[in-house]
Amino acid sequence: MSVRKNLSNSVEAPPIDLHGLVRELFPINRSITGAGVRKTLAILARHSQLEIREVPSGTAVLDWEVPLEWNIRSATIRSLDGRCLVNFADNNLHVVGYSKPIHKEVSRAELAQHVHTLPDQPELIPYRTGYFADDWGFCMTDNLWQAMQDESYRIDIDSDLSPGSLTYGELFLPGELSDEVLITAHICHPSLANDNLSGIAVALALALRQAQRERRLSYRFLFIPATIGAITWLAHNESRLDRVCHGLVLTCVGDRGRFHYKKSRSGASIDGAMAHVLHHSGHPHEIMAFNPYGYDERQFCSPAFDLPMGCLMRSVHGTFPEYHTSADNPDFVRPEALDQSYAVVATLLDLLDANRTYVRTDGRGEPQLGRRGLYRAIAGQKEAGGASQMELLWVLNLADGKHSLLEMADRADIPFRRLQKAARLALDAELIKEVGGLRSYRPPQLVPNRRKPRHCP
Amino acid sequence: MSVRKNLSNSVEAPPIDLHGLVRELFPINRSITGAGVRKTLAILARHSQLEIREVPSGTAVLDWEVPLEWNIRSATIRSLDGRCLVNFADNNLHVVGYSKPIHKEVSRAELAQHVHTLPDQPELIPYRTGYFADDWGFCMTDNLWQAMQDESYRIDIDSDLSPGSLTYGELFLPGELSDEVLITAHICHPSLANDNLSGIAVALALALRQAQRERRLSYRFLFIPATIGAITWLAHNESRLDRVCHGLVLTCVGDRGRFHYKKSRSGASIDGAMAHVLHHSGHPHEIMAFNPYGYDERQFCSPAFDLPMGCLMRSVHGTFPEYHTSADNPDFVRPEALDQSYAVVATLLDLLDANRTYVRTDGRGEPQLGRRGLYRAIAGQKEAGGASQMELLWVLNLADGKHSLLEMADRADIPFRRLQKAARLALDAELIKEVGGLRSYRPPQLVPNRRKPRHCP
Amino acid sequence: MSVRKNLSNSVEAPPIDLHGLVRELFPINRSITGAGVRKTLAILARHSQLEIREVPSGTAVLDWEVPLEWNIRSATIRSLDGRCLVNFADNNLHVVGYSKPIHKEVSRAELAQHVHTLPDQPELIPYRTGYFADDWGFCMTDNLWQAMQDESYRIDIDSDLSPGSLTYGELFLPGELSDEVLITAHICHPSLANDNLSGIAVALALALRQAQRERRLSYRFLFIPATIGAITWLAHNESRLDRVCHGLVLTCVGDRGRFHYKKSRSGASIDGAMAHVLHHSGHPHEIMAFNPYGYDERQFCSPAFDLPMGCLMRSVHGTFPEYHTSADNPDFVRPEALDQSYAVVATLLDLLDANRTYVRTDGRGEPQLGRRGLYRAIAGQKEAGGASQMELLWVLNLADGKHSLLEMADRADIPFRRLQKAARLALDAELIKEVGGLRSYRPPQLVPNRRKPRHCP
Repeated sequence: MSVRKNLSNSVEAPPIDLHGLVRELFPINRSITGAGVRKTLAILARHSQLEIREVPSGTAVLDWEVPLEWNIRSATIRSLDGRCLVNFADNNLHVVGYSKPIHKEVSRAELAQHVHTLPDQPELIPYRTGYFADDWGFCMTDNLWQAMQDESYRIDIDSDLSPGSLTYGELFLPGELSDEVLITAHICHPSLANDNLSGIAVALALALRQAQRERRLSYRFLFIPATIGAITWLAHNESRLDRVCHGLVLTCVGDRGRFHYKKSRSGASIDGAMAHVLHHSGHPHEIMAFNPYGYDERQFCSPAFDLPMGCLMRSVHGTFPEYHTSADNPDFVRPEALDQSYAVVATLLDLLDANRTYVRTDGRGEPQLGRRGLYRAIAGQKEAGGASQMELLWVLNLADGKHSLLEMADRADIPFRRLQKAARLALDAELIKEVGGLRSYRPPQLVPNRRKPRHCP
Repeated sequence: MSVRKNLSNSVEAPPIDLHGLVRELFPINRSITGAGVRKTLAILARHSQLEIREVPSGTAVLDWEVPLEWNIRSATIRSLDGRCLVNFADNNLHVVGYSKPIHKEVSRAELAQHVHTLPDQPELIPYRTGYFADDWGFCMTDNLWQAMQDESYRIDIDSDLSPGSLTYGELFLPGELSDEVLITAHICHPSLANDNLSGIAVALALALRQAQRERRLSYRFLFIPATIGAITWLAHNESRLDRVCHGLVLTCVGDRGRFHYKKSRSGASIDGAMAHVLHHSGHPHEIMAFNPYGYDERQFCSPAFDLPMGCLMRSVHGTFPEYHTSADNPDFVRPEALDQSYAVVATLLDLLDANRTYVRTDGRGEPQLGRRGLYRAIAGQKEAGGASQMELLWVLNLADGKHSLLEMADRADIPFRRLQKAARLALDAELIKEVGGLRSYRPPQLVPNRRKPRHCP
Repeated sequence: MSVRKNLSNSVEAPPIDLHGLVRELFPINRSITGAGVRKTLAILARHSQLEIREVPSGTAVLDWEVPLEWNIRSATIRSLDGRCLVNFADNNLHVVGYSKPIHKEVSRAELAQHVHTLPDQPELIPYRTGYFADDWGFCMTDNLWQAMQDESYRIDIDSDLSPGSLTYGELFLPGELSDEVLITAHICHPSLANDNLSGIAVALALALRQAQRERRLSYRFLFIPATIGAITWLAHNESRLDRVCHGLVLTCVGDRGRFHYKKSRSGASIDGAMAHVLHHSGHPHEIMAFNPYGYDERQFCSPAFDLPMGCLMRSVHGTFPEYHTSADNPDFVRPEALDQSYAVVATLLDLLDANRTYVRTDGRGEPQLGRRGLYRAIAGQKEAGGASQMELLWVLNLADGKHSLLEMADRADIPFRRLQKAARLALDAELIKEVGGLRSYRPPQLVPNRRKPRHCP
């Protein structure tokens, strides 16, 4: 256990107050377009070098089109004697997303066609949207709806759907290599905290962290409306997608549930890296097969793109009772859960950035460690460099130009960070050397002309 | 469970009364050659377009030779005072197959050398043959034999072994493609019901079924004496064996035991197809490794042929107490078990015939399903076409020219038939297209010149 | 169980008294160089054609250098009144290996810096060395050390470290092929019995055994000081290493523990062969993954050599309480355990030597076994040749030029020896033929121009 604790403790605290950011963003009404998204991104841009992009309504993006922009100022249901029964000002979830404007007196029967409740959770307001529905609707607690027994009601929705734009945020951190890690979070949900203010907060903190570090890989962070935002970004970046060598969708990372990592469609190397990090994190977790439902991995992992991207969650969408209800509020999200999620992904990024392939400078037998001051005095004792004898032996044995450091760590079942330290010792002693970066990879120069032994049947 | 029930319920009832056919065929005395085989095939030919082939005794077939034809008219053991103790007319099992003619008085001691009983099952008559033994023998209950304590007996076997021919039946149903599915059943066992009148009945019903359907693949049904019949057919069809792309030996498919599927030698795709069908059938079953013992898969899967053929059974030969005894009678075979076996193989044939590979017409992101009327109104609700949203998403995600529909179904763990419906919807909406048939397969035209993303180590 | 017993019983008794040899070698003081190693090798050479090699101190070998030779004549700790408290003549473990000469009166406090005990095992003397430490030291029971409470002691070590040579033994048995099996044991431990007099004794017995047999493969046995001996041999044999097609390090093979086989780094075929032998031996055993710690497999499996070598042990070094203490004496090693280890490796060598690939002379269908006298009269009965019908069918089915006999045995889960007998029957009947040796391997001549059937998706 001490090893595992060491690992997760080794990441510093997040550079911002994650839960504070969730609370700050919570009251804003977001949808896939409109003022709420802009206001959200403006807050993120106060912390970071976020670039904000606007794509006009009507722009063709792959099989889709950027929709009209939706904005809403107010919405109410009143009794005919003027009492306000439902008020959008009280809770953003009260209005179905993309509701068209309406001002009308309606019978209860007609209103019932436009009301959404949760009879099994009568005290919660559901979250509903109808982006392409040309309709309107209200969401409320079932308790309230059952108590509303008047014959007619006055409804007002002061919204508009009109040409505007889709807004998203992008933050790029160039590294030594053009190969990039893509981290995305969706920003289109109104007052829901775990889905996905948690993902937004953790992604922003990671962006701030990576901005302060030396980077071998490049890093790109996207804050996008789900589906149409991913489609739009993909359409505008098709020619550059081959730079993405690892990617992660972050969502629902703030509750107290165990971690769930949903693997990439293609079985990309990020799957192994994340499994390694979670395995050694000491946190309960589950690795899930890819499936074509969920968040924007659906778009990134569509067949012609097939990007090497997974999705990190704690509780899985659709499986926890607070999902898509008014109970997904800032109290449901826990500060320590956000910090853990941050630490897990930060550890992952450190691993991805540091993962390299080495080859022994002379791989014939073990080098004499004693005369290099690398041989333990007493078995099991750790060296000053922080790597034990065993870790050094693993690096020296598997530094053959065919095993990445992560592959070594998995074969040895030792945390990556500890093998990384052993590799540093071996590099400093000129016992190993790196074989190429990512772009600049060349086959390792093995001992010249050594014939491999026959492995007979 | 409803899914599984749907699947097996989806196959119509057999076109003939399977148990009735078993009862009709049961009294006939069959061997690897002779009148019984001809009479059996004649009954099958009354139902179907069966072609009956005769191959003369002495014909060289691979390492073997077609044997002399054996026919038997009567056989008895009588006491010297004339009482008939054992009469072939009572049960075909009473005489060892290929017994040569004999008319003789013998001591009990001499007779004992030619008598076969089952001391552990003293009320049952064993089934024995001696095709190449130049011998004769009787089979009877051990109870009877223990009661026969006379010093001598009169034995008569009125049989003959003489040049004639080996007889087998073949039924070929051409399809759109010349690739064929080969279904075989052995016809050389006398009055045994599960081994193999069950296989004969199910194979005939399947042939009648496939004859009435549109066929993409071709289908060939063989009704052959075991071993020598398979050898003979193989010898006469060597140049055409590469047409066989899936094959199945049917035997012991009429008892109440769980299903057993014995895989092909080569790990052919029929193994996965049958495993899929059994998995989703809801029936208890077991998948067995290939071994070189058993039925005619021994010949079809011999090393130089190595045909992609498995063997479907319910109870496994040699493991049930009725096997090769007079207890393997029409009461041991159950009508509902025969019908289940028919339904399982019919489902398999439908799967094989419909299994194709698709590619998205534009695989970049998800298509906008809403404007095509393919987007669900409420999560989980099924479409009119019978496919749910999830199934459609699987097809759209895996239609990359690399996954057959069966591979999609296995990855999604969804019955093939349901993915097939989703694929139909996607085809109709021109969201996917087929990539080649079997013979006409050409590599899929993927999105031109799209560079795949790097999956870095 | 009878099968398994048959297998291990099938190897004859060892050609020498293994436990007697352990007892004979035990009193000799060995180190990585010096008189003790020479005396040990001289005893082995009395039994065999062992060649003894001397490599001068200072010779460069890979990253290392052959060290000075260490010899020791006597060593004592005495009280100042002349009582002898610790005497090297009583136990070779009393002096730390490679202790430099010293003659001095020392305070208890100073002596304490050079004394090694085992507080948790206060009645045992530990084994310690300091090859490159330029130091000296004594090992004793903790009980004795606690009783030594004088202020000062007189210490004398009459040793010398001076130019000489490293000594090792090599025994080569040429076979029909130049491909060789390499068996090694380390000889540098003083009076320790399981580690590694057990390995020395078993390796010598195997060498004597193989010398008396027809050999298809060649066999090389090395008796070397650990690490530096392996490094030295590798340095002097680099150009010939590609002849090694299987190899085994033998150590700790004399105690009563279960067998442990540590696999090769590369996953070589010896791993499967040893797993097969242990599986069918009936002995409890465990297969362990490779790791870069342990015995000379560390050198042989270093990345640029990567020889196909595993390591056979009973109890694993470092895990049994007697390890590297005075309790690892001849009583700890059991005669029957040594004999079992001998039998297991002898069975392995027989397997490696006999493992071949066959192809059917005509692989179309089963051959007619009856007319060749190879068909069983009664199911399950064994043939005179010692192979059952089932074993013969496996050989005939898998003799396709792609399965070695070991691969057949593993697929059939039948002991190699029994399939070997079946193959002999099939060879004698000209039903199969061998496809190439190791060096002379040529692709099998399959039935000409046979098109393989399509295995459709």
